Amino acid sequence: MPIAPGSTIGILGGGQLGRMLALAASALGYRTHIFCPDPDSPAFQVTANRTIAPYGDEIALKTFAQSVSVVTYEFENVPAETAALLERLVPTRPGAKALAVAQDRFTEKEFVRVAGATTVRYATVSSATDIAAAVAATGLPAILKSRRLGYDGKGQRQIERAEEVEPAWLELGAGDCILEGWAPFVAEVSVILARASDGAVATYDVPQNTHEGGILRRSVVPATVGGATAATAVDIALRIAAALDYVGVLAVEMFVLGDGTVLVNEIAPRVHNSGHWTIDACVTSQFEQHIRAVCDLPLGSTERHSDAEMINLIGHEIDRWPNLMGDPTAKLHLYGKTEAREGRKMGHVTRVRRRQT
Amino acid sequence: MPIAPGSTIGILGGGQLGRMLALAASALGYRTHIFCPDPDSPAFQVTANRTIAPYGDEIALKTFAQSVSVVTYEFENVPAETAALLERLVPTRPGAKALAVAQDRFTEKEFVRVAGATTVRYATVSSATDIAAAVAATGLPAILKSRRLGYDGKGQRQIERAEEVEPAWLELGAGDCILEGWAPFVAEVSVILARASDGAVATYDVPQNTHEGGILRRSVVPATVGGATAATAVDIALRIAAALDYVGVLAVEMFVLGDGTVLVNEIAPRVHNSGHWTIDACVTSQFEQHIRAVCDLPLGSTERHSDAEMINLIGHEIDRWPNLMGDPTAKLHLYGKTEAREGRKMGHVTRVRRRQT
Repeated sequence: MPIAPGSTIGILGGGQLGRMLALAASALGYRTHIFCPDPDSPAFQVTANRTIAPYGDEIALKTFAQSVSVVTYEFENVPAETAALLERLVPTRPGAKALAVAQDRFTEKEFVRVAGATTVRYATVSSATDIAAAVAATGLPAILKSRRLGYDGKGQRQIERAEEVEPAWLELGAGDCILEGWAPFVAEVSVILARASDGAVATYDVPQNTHEGGILRRSVVPATVGGATAATAVDIALRIAAALDYVGVLAVEMFVLGDGTVLVNEIAPRVHNSGHWTIDACVTSQFEQHIRAVCDLPLGSTERHSDAEMINLIGHEIDRWPNLMGDPTAKLHLYGKTEAREGRKMGHVTRVRRRQT
Repeated sequence: MPIAPGSTIGILGGGQLGRMLALAASALGYRTHIFCPDPDSPAFQVTANRTIAPYGDEIALKTFAQSVSVVTYEFENVPAETAALLERLVPTRPGAKALAVAQDRFTEKEFVRVAGATTVRYATVSSATDIAAAVAATGLPAILKSRRLGYDGKGQRQIERAEEVEPAWLELGAGDCILEGWAPFVAEVSVILARASDGAVATYDVPQNTHEGGILRRSVVPATVGGATAATAVDIALRIAAALDYVGVLAVEMFVLGDGTVLVNEIAPRVHNSGHWTIDACVTSQFEQHIRAVCDLPLGSTERHSDAEMINLIGHEIDRWPNLMGDPTAKLHLYGKTEAREGRKMGHVTRVRRRQT
């Protein structure tokens, strides 16, 4: 049963993804209610309904749940208890399973393997005594990552030599970590797809991505990887979405090796930075698509009318806005963040060109 | 000097145009503050800052002006005193001249003539004794209209025979009216353009419009009128914009006669219903373009990437939303209005197709 326009959609998280979800919901005639602990949340600027409270505040969560017809979220690190509490009160999409899988890098990789896809080699490191076996399993170079709560390269250490693992593990807090083998990739791609509650799926053209310092720098569509590789990537993502019984937009980041092998790197159970170009190049943006899926509406057309290149504006790169506003090929999206801290995503710019293919 | 993203844009009027202006401003990183007397204003749903007060409330207007970096409006019937008060306190764009011209159908037609364009024949009717001369000037059939405060066919009466004028004039309140001769048009078009404070202009492709009962039903781009006619229409609109020393998006509605003559029907000093298709078919929508102009930013590209057909959803036509959501060719825009009254614009749908020409 679709959730009718005019209803209120609850969004956990008040960053740029929550903001762009709210804008897309508004265009479809929905009201939004943003829940976020940070009083300065950029998404608060685009809605009449906000709750400023910690994600563990049960009273605030209950009041929030009563004020909305459905809850979704802009980030995968929603505490499990928060999601569980909300799910008892109101439809919450995507569900707890997708959160549980995506919150833990080890669980995620195990899940991906069971779903029939391939990842880099990996091993858990929960104590210093795990290190030798882990290095043997992954080979070197490798990357040591916190199993939980990392994003944009945070909570990660590059490992070249075996003796670097223990100090890196101590630096990361000596907690539950995962050592991931290095993938000698020739390209990074991601699959952005939407899945409806009836199992219908819609996929976007596959963007090719470039990261710098663990942060996405650039997404380009069409990708230069061949159509066969893109089709493999889409097939993998569809298997993962089905295995999660997923509802909403799902992003799967992947490595492409020289021989065409596609490895799954990360799953994001949400709209994703590498899908921002869909706003300006597709009939239905990933944000509208997510709103459609969580409101039980039919999925929209993912047809791409333009070629696109999306570039993130990170930290003080936003100071270039006067030039970008004057560039007729640049679609500028700014997030309303007040402070341009280093590494902070402040906006993005999408350049669109008449579609060539 | 551009008004920087992060600043707050004040918008007078809280209907769908104010709402879509606010959404476009948000995408560029601006905050918005909506001023509207109606507590149920749809635009209030998409902003954190609202003032509910009459347009004549000087204290509320002053507080509003102090909270924003620039003021614009979604409708031309802003009282002159309101605009004058705001202009003294904060940049207000477009300015008082455009409002004064567009608020009065007689002043508007006189202005259009002075700017070098043609209108239908017209004559004022302010008393019963004006009627005979007015009918002689315009011929019949004709339309009697209130000089001020009409929209969407309100405040108008169709006149077939001379003896119908007096009762119509009495029905319209026996005030200042204008009698407009009938234009035997073969097509209706409009020009949507933007003009910056430095005189730079950007025009959109000309849509062809169909009205029903005085309300816009449909806009199609490209128009079936020839390129020469469209060029004439654009030229007329540019002359009007220059004569107004205009800043912002301006819409000029026109009649095209069988011999290719183009007559100016109405000027709207604001974003316009016949430009809604630009959201889905152009690099820069009319809403973003208006925000750019009033914030002294460079105008954006008006390049059209798709062919488009926009259809208004009026009154209970919005009840078709489940079908429209399921139509992959339909981009649905709903305005968040709670009550579907007869003749009320509840939303619109734009169908986009790969550009043919």
